[in-house]
Amino acid sequence: MSSAAPVPVPGLIAIDHVGVAVPDLDAAITFHTAVLGLVLLHREENVEQGVAEAMLAPPGDTSGTQLQLLAPLHAQSALARFLERSGPGLQQLAYRVEDIDHAASVLRRKGLRLLYDAARTGTGGSRINFVHPKDTGGVLIELVQAAAAVERMETGQQ
Amino acid sequence: MSSAAPVPVPGLIAIDHVGVAVPDLDAAITFHTAVLGLVLLHREENVEQGVAEAMLAPPGDTSGTQLQLLAPLHAQSALARFLERSGPGLQQLAYRVEDIDHAASVLRRKGLRLLYDAARTGTGGSRINFVHPKDTGGVLIELVQAAAAVERMETGQQ
Repeated sequence: MSSAAPVPVPGLIAIDHVGVAVPDLDAAITFHTAVLGLVLLHREENVEQGVAEAMLAPPGDTSGTQLQLLAPLHAQSALARFLERSGPGLQQLAYRVEDIDHAASVLRRKGLRLLYDAARTGTGGSRINFVHPKDTGGVLIELVQAAAAVERMETGQQ
Repeated sequence: MSSAAPVPVPGLIAIDHVGVAVPDLDAAITFHTAVLGLVLLHREENVEQGVAEAMLAPPGDTSGTQLQLLAPLHAQSALARFLERSGPGLQQLAYRVEDIDHAASVLRRKGLRLLYDAARTGTGGSRINFVHPKDTGGVLIELVQAAAAVERMETGQQ
């Protein structure tokens, strides 16, 4: 390989969302809507991840970067351990990617550790994985491939 | 005032940027560009805030939410204290507002504490203030009025 070979990049498209750990999802939704004026776009429980979550955004920018509120479903979830260790607050930064398998492969080749061997199911049918914060300067980075992109790949559409 | 009176909102437009505390700005820029494939959009030193900073974004989304890397200029800066206390990682979540004085006034009326009595100068000539993390569920929220919006108000343009 010549030195002019292009350096592979993981293909980050945008900052998809910022995740905030909260002890009480309903109280956090009320604060962010009634006080900050954000709008609630979606909520769900992700049993595999052990979290109840809500997606919010400023009313004029609902297609941009969203705020994700994350509350633990039980004391054994990773999020419950985060709250015990660090208290409520900023917990993760999620980048949208077109192809999460490609992104994970590129980052592994660059020496970064991913939390899962294969992507798991995230918000709204997306596929997600995480880069270990020890390899990113202390930030828990989520990679998220949107459900629409998952569907395009499964059906072979571009 | 009748119960139907509109509830005032601070007027958050979008998530402007996510701030990450780093001990070494050059090293953090290299990681985010060479490994993650982000592009460097801007860098500056803000002596009043005691930080050297860089703004980055995914290459296809440079007008969306940006990543802000923040390194302390000296040991007395608030950011140096953050790094000592919490280590490197997610440090702040910044919302863009059209009018920071209005936003600050609304949030104060709702009982939230702001760090500064009056907005100060932020990245690229913007005006900024912060909401105390004890009043937001543990998140240091920055309010930022873009330099263009500051200029429109100063010249009386809409």
